Amino acid sequence: MYNIIDEPKDSCGLFGIFGLRKVAELVYLGLYSLQHRGQESAGIVVSDEKRIKEHKGMGLVESVFSHVELGDLAGHLAIGHVRYSTTGISSVKNAQPFLVRYGGGSLAIAHNGNLVNACFLHDALEAKGSIFQTTMDSEIIIHLIAKSEKEALKDKIIDSLSQVKGAASLLIMTKDQLIGARDVNGFRPLCLGELDGGYVLASETCALDIVRANYIREIEPGEIIFIDKKGVESFHLSPKVQTSSCIFEFVYFARPDSNIFGGNVYQTRKRLGARLAEEFPADADLVMPIPDSGNYAALGYAEQSGIPFEMGFIRNHYVGRTFIQPSQSIRDFGVKVKLNPVKEILKGKRIAIVEDSVVRGTTCRNRIATLREIGVKEVHMRISCPPLKYPCFYGIDFPDREELIASTRSVKEIEKFLGLDSLEFLSLEGLVSSMPIPGDNFCLACFNGKYPVKYFEKIAKNRLETEEE
Amino acid sequence: MYNIIDEPKDSCGLFGIFGLRKVAELVYLGLYSLQHRGQESAGIVVSDEKRIKEHKGMGLVESVFSHVELGDLAGHLAIGHVRYSTTGISSVKNAQPFLVRYGGGSLAIAHNGNLVNACFLHDALEAKGSIFQTTMDSEIIIHLIAKSEKEALKDKIIDSLSQVKGAASLLIMTKDQLIGARDVNGFRPLCLGELDGGYVLASETCALDIVRANYIREIEPGEIIFIDKKGVESFHLSPKVQTSSCIFEFVYFARPDSNIFGGNVYQTRKRLGARLAEEFPADADLVMPIPDSGNYAALGYAEQSGIPFEMGFIRNHYVGRTFIQPSQSIRDFGVKVKLNPVKEILKGKRIAIVEDSVVRGTTCRNRIATLREIGVKEVHMRISCPPLKYPCFYGIDFPDREELIASTRSVKEIEKFLGLDSLEFLSLEGLVSSMPIPGDNFCLACFNGKYPVKYFEKIAKNRLETEEE
Amino acid sequence: MYNIIDEPKDSCGLFGIFGLRKVAELVYLGLYSLQHRGQESAGIVVSDEKRIKEHKGMGLVESVFSHVELGDLAGHLAIGHVRYSTTGISSVKNAQPFLVRYGGGSLAIAHNGNLVNACFLHDALEAKGSIFQTTMDSEIIIHLIAKSEKEALKDKIIDSLSQVKGAASLLIMTKDQLIGARDVNGFRPLCLGELDGGYVLASETCALDIVRANYIREIEPGEIIFIDKKGVESFHLSPKVQTSSCIFEFVYFARPDSNIFGGNVYQTRKRLGARLAEEFPADADLVMPIPDSGNYAALGYAEQSGIPFEMGFIRNHYVGRTFIQPSQSIRDFGVKVKLNPVKEILKGKRIAIVEDSVVRGTTCRNRIATLREIGVKEVHMRISCPPLKYPCFYGIDFPDREELIASTRSVKEIEKFLGLDSLEFLSLEGLVSSMPIPGDNFCLACFNGKYPVKYFEKIAKNRLETEEE
Amino acid sequence: MYNIIDEPKDSCGLFGIFGLRKVAELVYLGLYSLQHRGQESAGIVVSDEKRIKEHKGMGLVESVFSHVELGDLAGHLAIGHVRYSTTGISSVKNAQPFLVRYGGGSLAIAHNGNLVNACFLHDALEAKGSIFQTTMDSEIIIHLIAKSEKEALKDKIIDSLSQVKGAASLLIMTKDQLIGARDVNGFRPLCLGELDGGYVLASETCALDIVRANYIREIEPGEIIFIDKKGVESFHLSPKVQTSSCIFEFVYFARPDSNIFGGNVYQTRKRLGARLAEEFPADADLVMPIPDSGNYAALGYAEQSGIPFEMGFIRNHYVGRTFIQPSQSIRDFGVKVKLNPVKEILKGKRIAIVEDSVVRGTTCRNRIATLREIGVKEVHMRISCPPLKYPCFYGIDFPDREELIASTRSVKEIEKFLGLDSLEFLSLEGLVSSMPIPGDNFCLACFNGKYPVKYFEKIAKNRLETEEE
Repeated sequence: MYNIIDEPKDSCGLFGIFGLRKVAELVYLGLYSLQHRGQESAGIVVSDEKRIKEHKGMGLVESVFSHVELGDLAGHLAIGHVRYSTTGISSVKNAQPFLVRYGGGSLAIAHNGNLVNACFLHDALEAKGSIFQTTMDSEIIIHLIAKSEKEALKDKIIDSLSQVKGAASLLIMTKDQLIGARDVNGFRPLCLGELDGGYVLASETCALDIVRANYIREIEPGEIIFIDKKGVESFHLSPKVQTSSCIFEFVYFARPDSNIFGGNVYQTRKRLGARLAEEFPADADLVMPIPDSGNYAALGYAEQSGIPFEMGFIRNHYVGRTFIQPSQSIRDFGVKVKLNPVKEILKGKRIAIVEDSVVRGTTCRNRIATLREIGVKEVHMRISCPPLKYPCFYGIDFPDREELIASTRSVKEIEKFLGLDSLEFLSLEGLVSSMPIPGDNFCLACFNGKYPVKYFEKIAKNRLETEEE
Repeated sequence: MYNIIDEPKDSCGLFGIFGLRKVAELVYLGLYSLQHRGQESAGIVVSDEKRIKEHKGMGLVESVFSHVELGDLAGHLAIGHVRYSTTGISSVKNAQPFLVRYGGGSLAIAHNGNLVNACFLHDALEAKGSIFQTTMDSEIIIHLIAKSEKEALKDKIIDSLSQVKGAASLLIMTKDQLIGARDVNGFRPLCLGELDGGYVLASETCALDIVRANYIREIEPGEIIFIDKKGVESFHLSPKVQTSSCIFEFVYFARPDSNIFGGNVYQTRKRLGARLAEEFPADADLVMPIPDSGNYAALGYAEQSGIPFEMGFIRNHYVGRTFIQPSQSIRDFGVKVKLNPVKEILKGKRIAIVEDSVVRGTTCRNRIATLREIGVKEVHMRISCPPLKYPCFYGIDFPDREELIASTRSVKEIEKFLGLDSLEFLSLEGLVSSMPIPGDNFCLACFNGKYPVKYFEKIAKNRLETEEE
Repeated sequence: MYNIIDEPKDSCGLFGIFGLRKVAELVYLGLYSLQHRGQESAGIVVSDEKRIKEHKGMGLVESVFSHVELGDLAGHLAIGHVRYSTTGISSVKNAQPFLVRYGGGSLAIAHNGNLVNACFLHDALEAKGSIFQTTMDSEIIIHLIAKSEKEALKDKIIDSLSQVKGAASLLIMTKDQLIGARDVNGFRPLCLGELDGGYVLASETCALDIVRANYIREIEPGEIIFIDKKGVESFHLSPKVQTSSCIFEFVYFARPDSNIFGGNVYQTRKRLGARLAEEFPADADLVMPIPDSGNYAALGYAEQSGIPFEMGFIRNHYVGRTFIQPSQSIRDFGVKVKLNPVKEILKGKRIAIVEDSVVRGTTCRNRIATLREIGVKEVHMRISCPPLKYPCFYGIDFPDREELIASTRSVKEIEKFLGLDSLEFLSLEGLVSSMPIPGDNFCLACFNGKYPVKYFEKIAKNRLETEEE
Repeated sequence: MYNIIDEPKDSCGLFGIFGLRKVAELVYLGLYSLQHRGQESAGIVVSDEKRIKEHKGMGLVESVFSHVELGDLAGHLAIGHVRYSTTGISSVKNAQPFLVRYGGGSLAIAHNGNLVNACFLHDALEAKGSIFQTTMDSEIIIHLIAKSEKEALKDKIIDSLSQVKGAASLLIMTKDQLIGARDVNGFRPLCLGELDGGYVLASETCALDIVRANYIREIEPGEIIFIDKKGVESFHLSPKVQTSSCIFEFVYFARPDSNIFGGNVYQTRKRLGARLAEEFPADADLVMPIPDSGNYAALGYAEQSGIPFEMGFIRNHYVGRTFIQPSQSIRDFGVKVKLNPVKEILKGKRIAIVEDSVVRGTTCRNRIATLREIGVKEVHMRISCPPLKYPCFYGIDFPDREELIASTRSVKEIEKFLGLDSLEFLSLEGLVSSMPIPGDNFCLACFNGKYPVKYFEKIAKNRLETEEE
């Protein structure tokens, strides 16, 4: 979602279901497995064909829903959403799904991605008398549907989605219909599954696994799928454009047990690690990941290089969101709370650390320092993607360019900043060639600055006026 | 507010302020003193001319706001709202003030009263593509403003308020302007005060007292008052119609220390009690109220009749909202928890109990039973208004007609149901003649069924479709 | 309870029950009606003859217990306690009843009052190896019982209570026995009732009323009453001393609907007001109380003097514990939040305000100021007890002497401080002669400094070492 | 801790510190890193030499302490505790450290382990008049100290610890002294570290790492160490007995980055896995752990066998304590929520799963079933310790014998129950020979039933009488 006021961009997880009983419980499970895509808020909207009910709240799925809430959400049609926001305004008002009533009845929407022409659409809608209650671009899509002069809901939705540009994997729901859609570029994933005669839509296949649904296929870029009692109908937005799926989903964002964009994430990450070992071997006694995100590339690196794999950092599974950084001294105690290095394994050794990516570099620098403290002899770092240099306008929340370490420093400078004996990044060619599908199907903008859809810098005119607490 | 779905109608409290520092703290105080007008939710919206911030929550003013929230709400212009709902859907989504952005910037609204043509306006708006997020008729007013084709905000507001029918005391706020309005019938109160060069708008004068503001005057029926840096401007909606203020505000709803509709509530209630003593004397040893609402009429009754006044029921000030009715037996323990009769004062006596009104009669019946138990000799009840027989469509939340004891039973039947030795209600003539202004200025619909503004029975077409949890 | 470290002294409420089903619900009701005796913490201990269960928590009865807790507390024997502490250390560790296991099984205790030889007993117990976990003198009584060399529990309890000096109305409970006791001076009240063949013990009769128990009699000073399946047995501690019940329970502390120490509180307060009118008439247009504590004396004053009674202050029933005093200015906004004067009734009038007592005088001073602001012509104050000059060592939590306004100022000085036209206090003779029993049965120490039991100033040697959070 | 009533036995984590500033923050960090040893409650007691303050609560360290609590706990001497209890009575009353006052001042104790003669000591103490407030055997140690007739505290503590039998790693604290102790058998770990001139005591070395303290040595079995301003003093309880440290700490309980009982846990687990590969090779395409506890043995198994290592289960890091098991059907959805198998890696493969131990076998059985569902060809399971057959009386909370799958079934029967192609357990000889120190230093009772200290079956006489909620 793009936010009309200057909030960070968000990535999110979607889960929808049609044609089963106790759908709220299944959506709860699905959102649980998509929790990595958003931890800020969670919501479920359910219909029993007569009434639509909703429950949303701030925090993890687990804390938003209890037996009470799930029990109240009876129905056989539901959509759910988890939202991610690293900083900034975080309000239950912006939690999704977003439920409204319009001339055609009730409508709920859940959105993953970021529109790039939100401001223009927003201003045009306000000029015609629309009022806005959230700072989410998802509200714009609802207004476009409500204002569409087409007769049928299908046509209204097609009309509406034809006007938006940018990233939008969407679930839309009426009291008796479930609709899934992906933008024409196919930036964010969305897949279709089957369960006991009903249908499931989810951001990643790991969410199908959890409810034991069978994978059918991905929703195609530009496809809108309508599911109701009569069955499944599919439409395609025109014209067809070159697909540009987010390659960073493979590098970091998606779960390793998911299949997205035609391939498996775990295997792809292992290939990235293997390719990294070919491009940049390391003279090391052991290979270790920064867990858990670096695990799979590290396995690939170790397997390809023949260097032993060790889990040199031990993860504390109890570190939650409210850890208090002690004030005792300037030393960064916190860094060891989450990951503590195993001195006996690492002391006196030359180690190769494999990580999926480097964003700001500050935490990484602290981790390297703890390795030096315990007497590691040499630290060689290998990153399973090229340097991140450019912002994402399609839904991944990178920090500003000045905070992206690779946008202002050379690899050698980063190596020095992190206190490494050597640092190497996978080549763009290596990244692309490790993908399970041809490389021209991906957006590589964060690495090469080539944006497949133009981003409009215009800022909505009253963006600074309102702030929710 | 009228609710598009079948919620109970609400009464509410309003407080707005312009041109002072730390306005959030003053609104907090004002809402505290208006808490009797609504205990379900509370909210404050503040502007510092650059940004508008809001905080709303379920529950009492005290539990919604802490130092943290008040500290965050800096500004010199603010409106606040307390909402009342005895039963049914109660959601923070319906908490007010209601803050949106539209083509002209940000707009917040707080509403006391109930529109009677909400469904028609709602359907017309939806037909033009408006989307609705709440079940409050207040949202309709905002849409009318946003959709108005007038140029200036003043004209948009006048345009909008000209279309609504029913009860609407309103506060509207932009980032630099405070607006107060009353419907042409003047159903609900709203007054203007002055404080240290700034302005205050409040539902009742007790809220002016609390912040030590000086009372200037009431907002007139059909008047819209615009307050900004340039000063105060006033407009009147046309055409002028006969005022029909809610007489029940005097009987029960308003605080006794408030002045509304041109008179003082405490004194008016004493006059009701005195008139009641004239119309229906009682052969009693003592006069006592059902505290606290019956206190003032009981004082008037005692004074007029010369019978000693006693406070025969002792109120437990710690009874809150979550009192658990014990399951021990069929006996109604709860009734004594709140009010316990003083046996030593009452045993063997003939007593006259004065109460402001009788709605369902069930609690009253239990109270009478506890008096019989402790050995009261005779119980004569006197009610300081006529029997309540008809529903209110303008914002007082009476139960359905079948639950209003006086709509289906004669006075004699009620007397028997309550277990009384005698029961008398003040006459309508007595009620009206005790008012501080001429009686034709009041709506008496709940007593005589004569509705000054027609209520439209049509139900919005999708009223049953959505339900917020 | 006396606190070994320098906490304020406490007053508390007790409720015990034997021989009924669902006793936890009845104790809940009883504590509700005794909530005025303590709002800091609440607890219930229940036995079903096999197991003893407890639940305690900080806050009001209502917030400590829900259906869940009450449902878990099954049994036919229970005691409950509400605790009061105006300032200082407030910890769930100090919540009562206090439940322990000792050589004879399990024992729970609930205590109202304050021992004066706690330090001596405490040091002696520690010297013999006892360990202490709370700062309550009630823990001492338990240790004395556990350490007693008597064989039978009855004898252990008699042995233990023979050693303590000061104020102690007590409930003690084993898995199959309910015990009630009052100290030989009879400082604090405790009464016995009957309900459906079972027994009830309560601090005040209002708690019997709430569960519809029949009043039997008061526990006598120095009496210990043992209730079990075999019936009720009574013992008396020797030697018999002159009773010295707390007269302040009549003046302020007890509920007006209670009977204590042989008389009714409401009627006694009216007599105090009437006597006050005789001793100190006022040339006033109306008599009004400071509600609710001054209500009854004001009624007596009005009745005796013939001056009309008005309720000139309106109480806001929603003011809770977390009211935030605004920082807006030096003006005391808070004072009007709780009680707002009715300008229309009071403006230009000469008024007589009746209050039960004056402690610090600061709040009272602010109230007088709000009366002056609204144009009251003359304010005459009448207090229904003599000046409070001395601290209480037996369980009423008065502030330190330097803060008691009457301990350092003459009546004329207080009159000036409060900004009054005249101020008069009831005479000690007037106070005593208004009591329902002969005056030599009362402790008057707070008025005349004559302490019936010596207070030991010695401080426990490790009193400053431990502090619970 | 042994519980006098029939609670499960507990294992716990200890952290103490002396001679630094802001010790509460350091204890907070230390407890964070020991959270795996206890998640039920957490507590910290701090002294500034004048006052001792405490804060305890139910739940994780993170939820018990905020900036507010840590800020209030100023001092230079502190002890902390995390408590573990899988089922049963869980009350803040039983949270540790346990703080009391006795004749010598204040004393706090924190205990890891389980006394086996608690009942006898408890009954003897009650016979002398001691009262008990908790169900923890730790309270017994405090009573023994308070009742000791020795003069000096050191002698009282030695006297007390000489009387207890079983497992007791202990931290004791007065207002100016920190004391650490281990029972003569050395069942549970406890080590000493140094930090900036102060001292640290901790259950495991991972807690020294987190505060960057330097490891000095382990506290020896039977050693009591006294730390105060004058320095460190050490005493030994007599007579010296054969050490019997808990081997299960190496197998499962301790963190892999800790050193305990003379060796590193990570390396020991890898040796267990390597030995397992020697004893029981598997004809498999890949080796995978059940994460995270099986990771290290699986790495050893893979390295020794030359079979590729894969992380075939993906862990959901967001699964918390309140996950709701859906009611949708009899299928066990929950099992996939925590660990989801990666189909693309595992389908059609022969896999060897390495796990540290098998307790009940039910969760394990479900995991195997999910592997079969996705088409795994063969599943061979290898367990890095012998079958668990006997209960632990020294502090590890195994379920009852009838629930321990290996106590009633043969390996072949378990293999069938779990649905495996093959199942093998490491031999006792293999287990012992993989340890970093000679095998006669370990308690192997859970495997071979040979208990180094006799367990007394006697039950305290009033064990069933009291139950805290």
